[in-house]
Amino acid sequence: MMKTIEGGICAAKGFKANGIHCGIRKNKSKRDLSLIVSDVKATAAAVYTTNLVKGAPIFVNQKHLADGHAQAIICNSGIANTCNADGIEKAEAMGQLVEDALGINKDDVIVGSTGVIGMPLNLTPIANGMAELVAGLDYDNSGLAAEGIMTTDTKKKEIAVSFDIDGVECRIGGIAKGSGMIHPNMATMLVFVTSDVAITSEMLQKAVSEDVKTSFNMISVDGDTSTNDTFAVLANGMAGNKLIDSEGEAYDKFCEALHKVSVYLSRKIAGDGEGATKLLECKVTGGKTDEIAKKVAKSVICSSLTKAAMFGADANWGRVLCAIGYSGADVDINKIDVSFKSVKGTIAVCHNGAGVDFSEEKAKEILLEKEIEILVDLNDGGFDATAWGCDLTYEYVKINGDYRT
Amino acid sequence: MMKTIEGGICAAKGFKANGIHCGIRKNKSKRDLSLIVSDVKATAAAVYTTNLVKGAPIFVNQKHLADGHAQAIICNSGIANTCNADGIEKAEAMGQLVEDALGINKDDVIVGSTGVIGMPLNLTPIANGMAELVAGLDYDNSGLAAEGIMTTDTKKKEIAVSFDIDGVECRIGGIAKGSGMIHPNMATMLVFVTSDVAITSEMLQKAVSEDVKTSFNMISVDGDTSTNDTFAVLANGMAGNKLIDSEGEAYDKFCEALHKVSVYLSRKIAGDGEGATKLLECKVTGGKTDEIAKKVAKSVICSSLTKAAMFGADANWGRVLCAIGYSGADVDINKIDVSFKSVKGTIAVCHNGAGVDFSEEKAKEILLEKEIEILVDLNDGGFDATAWGCDLTYEYVKINGDYRT
Repeated sequence: MMKTIEGGICAAKGFKANGIHCGIRKNKSKRDLSLIVSDVKATAAAVYTTNLVKGAPIFVNQKHLADGHAQAIICNSGIANTCNADGIEKAEAMGQLVEDALGINKDDVIVGSTGVIGMPLNLTPIANGMAELVAGLDYDNSGLAAEGIMTTDTKKKEIAVSFDIDGVECRIGGIAKGSGMIHPNMATMLVFVTSDVAITSEMLQKAVSEDVKTSFNMISVDGDTSTNDTFAVLANGMAGNKLIDSEGEAYDKFCEALHKVSVYLSRKIAGDGEGATKLLECKVTGGKTDEIAKKVAKSVICSSLTKAAMFGADANWGRVLCAIGYSGADVDINKIDVSFKSVKGTIAVCHNGAGVDFSEEKAKEILLEKEIEILVDLNDGGFDATAWGCDLTYEYVKINGDYRT
Repeated sequence: MMKTIEGGICAAKGFKANGIHCGIRKNKSKRDLSLIVSDVKATAAAVYTTNLVKGAPIFVNQKHLADGHAQAIICNSGIANTCNADGIEKAEAMGQLVEDALGINKDDVIVGSTGVIGMPLNLTPIANGMAELVAGLDYDNSGLAAEGIMTTDTKKKEIAVSFDIDGVECRIGGIAKGSGMIHPNMATMLVFVTSDVAITSEMLQKAVSEDVKTSFNMISVDGDTSTNDTFAVLANGMAGNKLIDSEGEAYDKFCEALHKVSVYLSRKIAGDGEGATKLLECKVTGGKTDEIAKKVAKSVICSSLTKAAMFGADANWGRVLCAIGYSGADVDINKIDVSFKSVKGTIAVCHNGAGVDFSEEKAKEILLEKEIEILVDLNDGGFDATAWGCDLTYEYVKINGDYRT
């Protein structure tokens, strides 16, 4: 029985964390440096942005994770360490600071940075903050680490679940930051997950690579694929289960728990998109192929016009149909049904590609809620897909009109 | 010598136009029905949206233009006549109303509709308005026709040029409406162009299809490809030039004049995007191929984050580089230079993919202007491309949060 538990990134056995304000961000009330450490070396796997412009930490992580192992994650917010001539050198230096402070080989350190692109990263506040950061490491500090990686996020994002494999209780938990520049693939900006499951690095990478296809790669805040997106998982084996080294029941249970964590964090990232007032969930059914269902769901979630209509609680379903039409997916427009759903009920607005009479009053009541489902039935096959996004608001424009100052 | 002249859609010999308020739109100060008529039958060519969801008028126009000829254009605003079960029937009926009023065969009528998708088009106000619409047809009414096709546009868009072919003076002029749901391909929503040049329908279609690649298909307001985009050209031959029936100097002169008109209208559509305060022009040079240069220019113009930064006059060039990185174009990030330019000067902000020191004060001064050029040199070959867009503003969200009411 899988169940949600407290503890976030520290819920799994043997993981300590901390987050402090070291001075990269001007606002002293904002934490800007996080550290996550496993008591023992863990298997590790990650996926990264597909943007050709990649943050310097990504090159360093690809090197450090080549052997499938890591023991710590250090991450700053405020500066992305991207498009700087000396970025890789500085990302390596962050690993070295962890080695100096904790004796963990720098090649076993995952490095993350998020914030403004193109401004140089100042290592001095990080170096000066290491003593405080390490001193505060604790098995109960997931929340502080979650805060330390936030930029324009308004809420910290953490979750953990427990589940059992062959009678052995295992845990998996994670933290995430999202907000802006969020778009498949990868969509996450930064997601760090820890687990005490014993699993080989090959199987862990397989699980992670499979998982993102229906979690983080199905969210979009603004269509801008970030340069620094990283989804990294550490599994230290301290739960004591029999090592997962192949597919089977134990692997499936791990994947199920991982997916619970990743979908929860995906929804949190989408719902806390820059300026968002609503979480949008587009559920597509009846697609001819998996790819068609995914393309349609993503296209609807990415449509600026649909997003703005949702902000205004306007049941302008023509924009949903328009977004399906330009998605590039092979669909039969004349078979499509569309409904809007929230806790206030469900209302059908389009049948067989044409409008149906509906109560504008009821539609308004449904769309004024904070979580909206856009239900699209393609009536053309057996494949489904879900994508997550948010509305487009004045606040998004405000945040991004003057981000750097 | 090509020169800009007055007269818009009526500048070419033998074209009358009018625009009235017939009652499709509630606001009586907004014209909502336009008519353009050639004294004689003209060759005609058009290109349409690539959206799978197509407005009913497009199916009708494809049929009517199959023979390469037309004599009139009727177009309403307020309702798109899209996603309605009886849409095609109603679009045909609009052609019939022109036949009844003017004796022009309905198969020679181009029909246009723009506005809300999925709401039924009421033909009664159009039928009732025909007498007034026809009575007011005049060789000097381009402005009224331009107003009659506007939706959320804030400015009417018209232009005309004269040029000579073998010593014969010829004219070409057009009107356009844009504003929202504007994105390649096609990007126009509605553009109607008239000319008195004598040209075969084959050569006219060739000219139109070639022209859009570097004009209307290079603009984006919001990434949403409209369902009703149409770019239609009528050429009635009344200038008296020798019929253009093949490539050569005369054809090139016609294409040059057409491009002057289409680029002018493209810029006007982009600069008058919904809520826009600025025209953005992304000029890419040094691409390895034409396709690469175009992809990069479009990706920059479409980036919500770049658009919001331009609204805030924030020289956040990292977002430009980010948009290049996810464009899907094969570029070498480490060779890229970026500058911002306006009437206040030019400022280099990125060299070889990394930031350079620049005066934030000077950058602000440049970016506070109403027309901004984003100059991207890929330093990787000889292909250039230009794309046009606008900033992302509070007003865009406001307009689209409650469009239907």
